[in-house]
Amino acid sequence: MSLLTVGTVAFDAIETPFGKTDKIVGGAATYIAWSASYFSERVNIVSIIGDDFDMKELELLRERGVNTEGIEIKSGKKSFFWSGKYHLDMNSRDTLITDLNVLLEFDPVIPESYWDSDVLLLGNIDPHLQLKVIMQLPERPKLVVMDTMNFWMTPDFINPLKEVIKKVDVLAINDAEARELSGEYSLVKAAKKILTMGPEYLIIKKGEHGALLFRENEVFFAPALPLDDVFDPTGAGDTFAGGFCGFIDKTRDISFENMKRAIIYGSTMASYCVEKFGTERLKHLTHKDIEDRVRSFIELVQFDIVLEG
Amino acid sequence: MSLLTVGTVAFDAIETPFGKTDKIVGGAATYIAWSASYFSERVNIVSIIGDDFDMKELELLRERGVNTEGIEIKSGKKSFFWSGKYHLDMNSRDTLITDLNVLLEFDPVIPESYWDSDVLLLGNIDPHLQLKVIMQLPERPKLVVMDTMNFWMTPDFINPLKEVIKKVDVLAINDAEARELSGEYSLVKAAKKILTMGPEYLIIKKGEHGALLFRENEVFFAPALPLDDVFDPTGAGDTFAGGFCGFIDKTRDISFENMKRAIIYGSTMASYCVEKFGTERLKHLTHKDIEDRVRSFIELVQFDIVLEG
Repeated sequence: MSLLTVGTVAFDAIETPFGKTDKIVGGAATYIAWSASYFSERVNIVSIIGDDFDMKELELLRERGVNTEGIEIKSGKKSFFWSGKYHLDMNSRDTLITDLNVLLEFDPVIPESYWDSDVLLLGNIDPHLQLKVIMQLPERPKLVVMDTMNFWMTPDFINPLKEVIKKVDVLAINDAEARELSGEYSLVKAAKKILTMGPEYLIIKKGEHGALLFRENEVFFAPALPLDDVFDPTGAGDTFAGGFCGFIDKTRDISFENMKRAIIYGSTMASYCVEKFGTERLKHLTHKDIEDRVRSFIELVQFDIVLEG
Repeated sequence: MSLLTVGTVAFDAIETPFGKTDKIVGGAATYIAWSASYFSERVNIVSIIGDDFDMKELELLRERGVNTEGIEIKSGKKSFFWSGKYHLDMNSRDTLITDLNVLLEFDPVIPESYWDSDVLLLGNIDPHLQLKVIMQLPERPKLVVMDTMNFWMTPDFINPLKEVIKKVDVLAINDAEARELSGEYSLVKAAKKILTMGPEYLIIKKGEHGALLFRENEVFFAPALPLDDVFDPTGAGDTFAGGFCGFIDKTRDISFENMKRAIIYGSTMASYCVEKFGTERLKHLTHKDIEDRVRSFIELVQFDIVLEG
């Protein structure tokens, strides 16, 4: 049981109403790996970094069963760097700096030891690269899940993006992206349209307002856990996706019922992620922490109505 | 089993991305009465209208077991009129016209035939008037529920508002109002603070993002049903409150567990309300319509996780 993910491993500098950080370790694949490591036996990362990266952080990941063989280290080059500032509502942010650095040279190569991965999670990168990853695998994984963003829904990228979407089982995007991709304001109508584009499942992430899972005529909704404070939302979506895929990898069950459970586990991981800056909170969770919070989710939405007919 | 409500009975003119209406019948108490009439044996309205009002509309309400004895008709005067235009997101709107008209003279008198009402729902009006209603009842109803809005959270009204809040069992407001009333951005912190102000229960309505019910250390979340289109959100909050109170009145159970059910029934009524302009959709519901949609709510959030410990 193993999960293959491709995405950024990077530095972030984050400012929220609660404080600010210097350069800390971030990137979609980092959050995904930390989150999935609580479920998957092995998480295989494909990414690229410069030799300025904090190599101790890779060691920490390896200690949790993460395979970093597919992380290319470019000597003399700098890692991808993003800096952003969150508004009070924590649902909107301004990007202050985006230094692509090594990301400009990213040409993912999947090590042979990754080929038998059961679940593939394509983090949010150039759809041309996502396509290359799919093409390199001699055998299709049991489940292919894809994240993306509105940046790729522009004339230069929309065609390769649609080609990737056609090839995946699950597309996970946020509400604004679902609206942009479908041209529909209503999320129900947006979902119907997107499900004709290829994927069997669509997850629409609504941040603090929870997540929706669509499949044909079925729909499931999971709230976000109401928290005293959302300290830093960076990586919450990736952490959600990592927990979702990790849980499915662990349970080896891609039914709609199990995807619902996976969404609860993904939401659980995301609810921990936002409690501290960066990946800090994700580094020290116990099995009991996770179960306790899943229990809170159950209690949050549980009600008991007996209908007649 | 009867419900007493005080609030506006009025004319609205509404514009949404889907179309616009001429003057149609609206007002908080109208929506509340239609919604509650599917549950309560008797709904008692206290309100004020001008003789320009469409009296056939009162007849329709009476046919559904609504008592209109407490609706004062001012001859030669005009009914309250509100006109508004919704933005594409349907969560925000501009008020175009507010003609208070008879509302300026509103001095609620509770007919003796209303005195034995089991549940009191104070619609959103001047807190001085809400207080007058509570004071006139010789016996406290089993449950007192209150709606209000940010307009009353200003220096001229905040003290009487707080006095009413102190006297009610359930306060039902939206997320922006909860933030304004508490001075806390986090809804969890806002709820903790508001629950020290008097009410045992707090409902925070989040429109298309559902509703939260807080009590001491308990919290319950109910989503809004994802709909193909939200046609006209006017009155959705009142319809929710009417369904919530009606259900509690009918079931005679004010436990937390039953309030959770009441929130699902209130959300169900609101999901119908927004499907057409004004009260149109609320006029022709069947018991089966309501049960079918409650079933959709159950399916929407139902998942099955068995935890170890």
